[in-house]
Amino acid sequence: MKTRVAIIGSGPSGLLLGHLLRAAGIDCVIVERQSPDYVLGRIRAGVLETVTTGLMEQLGIDAGLKAKGLLEEGFNLADGERLIRIEITRLTGKHVVVYGQTEVTRDLMDAAPERGLQIVYEAKEVALHDLESDRPSVTYLKDGVEHRIEADFIAGCDGFHGPSRKAIPGAQAREFEREYPFGWLGILADVPPCHPELIYANGARGFALASMRSTTRSRYYIQVPLTDTLDQWPAARLWDELAERFDPISEHGVTGGPALEVSIAPLRSYVFETMRHGRLFLAGDAAHIVPPTGAKGLNLAASDVAYLSDALIAHYRHGDDAALAGYEAKALARIWKAERFSWYLTKLMHRFPEDGRFEHRMQQAELDYVASSEAMQRVIAENYVGLPL
Amino acid sequence: MKTRVAIIGSGPSGLLLGHLLRAAGIDCVIVERQSPDYVLGRIRAGVLETVTTGLMEQLGIDAGLKAKGLLEEGFNLADGERLIRIEITRLTGKHVVVYGQTEVTRDLMDAAPERGLQIVYEAKEVALHDLESDRPSVTYLKDGVEHRIEADFIAGCDGFHGPSRKAIPGAQAREFEREYPFGWLGILADVPPCHPELIYANGARGFALASMRSTTRSRYYIQVPLTDTLDQWPAARLWDELAERFDPISEHGVTGGPALEVSIAPLRSYVFETMRHGRLFLAGDAAHIVPPTGAKGLNLAASDVAYLSDALIAHYRHGDDAALAGYEAKALARIWKAERFSWYLTKLMHRFPEDGRFEHRMQQAELDYVASSEAMQRVIAENYVGLPL
Repeated sequence: MKTRVAIIGSGPSGLLLGHLLRAAGIDCVIVERQSPDYVLGRIRAGVLETVTTGLMEQLGIDAGLKAKGLLEEGFNLADGERLIRIEITRLTGKHVVVYGQTEVTRDLMDAAPERGLQIVYEAKEVALHDLESDRPSVTYLKDGVEHRIEADFIAGCDGFHGPSRKAIPGAQAREFEREYPFGWLGILADVPPCHPELIYANGARGFALASMRSTTRSRYYIQVPLTDTLDQWPAARLWDELAERFDPISEHGVTGGPALEVSIAPLRSYVFETMRHGRLFLAGDAAHIVPPTGAKGLNLAASDVAYLSDALIAHYRHGDDAALAGYEAKALARIWKAERFSWYLTKLMHRFPEDGRFEHRMQQAELDYVASSEAMQRVIAENYVGLPL
Repeated sequence: MKTRVAIIGSGPSGLLLGHLLRAAGIDCVIVERQSPDYVLGRIRAGVLETVTTGLMEQLGIDAGLKAKGLLEEGFNLADGERLIRIEITRLTGKHVVVYGQTEVTRDLMDAAPERGLQIVYEAKEVALHDLESDRPSVTYLKDGVEHRIEADFIAGCDGFHGPSRKAIPGAQAREFEREYPFGWLGILADVPPCHPELIYANGARGFALASMRSTTRSRYYIQVPLTDTLDQWPAARLWDELAERFDPISEHGVTGGPALEVSIAPLRSYVFETMRHGRLFLAGDAAHIVPPTGAKGLNLAASDVAYLSDALIAHYRHGDDAALAGYEAKALARIWKAERFSWYLTKLMHRFPEDGRFEHRMQQAELDYVASSEAMQRVIAENYVGLPL
């Protein structure tokens, strides 16, 4: 098979890129290792920046977003029992939309057939070839048969564990990484949220986050030691813990219910520099990971894809390769700022076992300063809604 | 001897407090362990916030400040060879004044006799007594004779090494401390500054600061390992190093000359909580130390004294002790914010031996963000000019 752009991975970045290229009349094929159900089963963040909702609107795949997305004009930092509301719309003129990554993915998947966006699911043993030539290709096994896609370019949208980044020789790249000494224990349940807006809480018992996917579906997290396991956290214990944290500060208090999903995830900051190798371009989690604090992961994938699709369209429409040559620098400038904000908010809101009394007071002083300074609230707000492209 | 308020220490905080009390007609005496020349020989910061210049104006001891102080409307953060100007006046409506701490101290000392502010210099073995009674006292030896001052209140303005803080039982206080893994090597010389405004630089060779006391007197610093000694840094080597750092980014380049003073000082963050014990009140360095990055030390002493003088005046004029009771909470709220800013700027602009590649990139990302965000520039500016009282 031949195509213009072979896209590896059908998560939100691969799907968005595929739709943007198709809308510009550029042939492309998405190759995905998993089944559609598996892809939709991944539970991820659900706070969308304007950059992300803007791409969905531009594609006209925004009916679900418009019907079910919750427009949020603020969010809260809790310092003990004090709620500090960050009035993002008043401070920046923008808002965010609460709409689950699962829903974004489903909407993009559902729109694929009618728009001629071809997705090959359950493609096994995906491999990248001849990246430094002008005829790169992707091979995979499907139902036991080997297939090859010849393309002009390959887009690696296959996440942290995919083959794209691994196809780049180590000597030509640098990795930057930080692991955090705790994980997030999360629960998803069909219960009404305890508060109309997100609450990031730093309390005596550590970090906790009250968030939601809709007015009837809640998503909570608490900070746990990396040694904790799920069998130490039966749902009843977790609901008690959440009530302890959020009942004193939330509008409605925590409503418990059957868990749709419970998981413990580690937190990591990671950037892989380079995002280009020959004819391969990386986008999204394939090139960088942020800790979930601040919900930048999906939004950063969307901005990578916005830059990359513009660059590919300039190449095919005008034979102009300047944007392709500049893709990495442009994407990294925004990525590092989002890494910075995610790291800042993680450090501000969690208890770090290695911190002493002075460092703990610095957290309190920072929260106190945030509470008292509109300038500092604006800094947090402009990062939360997403820095401009 | 009897007085209303016995003040220990004739640095800027003791002198300011003494003058403010005298101006309100309240008797006080300052007891100082050193000679006037020794006090004036201490080389310290030279950037004054509005809070500090406002107190000097209010006292009418601002002739020197007005004649020789340099009004600064901005300062710079250097990220490698890029200068990021923080336009403090445009962003906050305020400015800072460059005027040496030595000059502030001299002006306050010179004005003491005519205003009836009594200062006992070279008072040895200063000791505090009966702080929890309503008749506290201070004793000292002068020319071999023991003296005793009975007072209503004692103000401990005697710096980090003075006896006041040490007179508070450890069980009634908490200490918060952070030491930094480097020191500042400083040089003072009668040479024109390399740049019209301060430059805080974070470069490949570490932190450096170009500052000045006047248009003809420069003060430079560079970050050095704590193991470095002055004999490793003959003036010629230091000037070469400073030229290397500042010639590429400053307007005039570095001019070397004979050193008036060269020193290496460690950096420390320190807060002693409580600032009150019975009839003793602490102010300035006696209660807290900031690293010099951001020049908050003297300014924080001034705000402590502003709160404390108001509280003492309310007590004597109106018999109102609410402000005395609230002094500690009010002072600490501002102190912790200044500690936070000093720590932030120290972390942003120095190379920390323990930092890995990720942390170093976080510094660069922060500087990149500062360069691109007016909101973040405003945050830095409002802290630099001093948060409101």
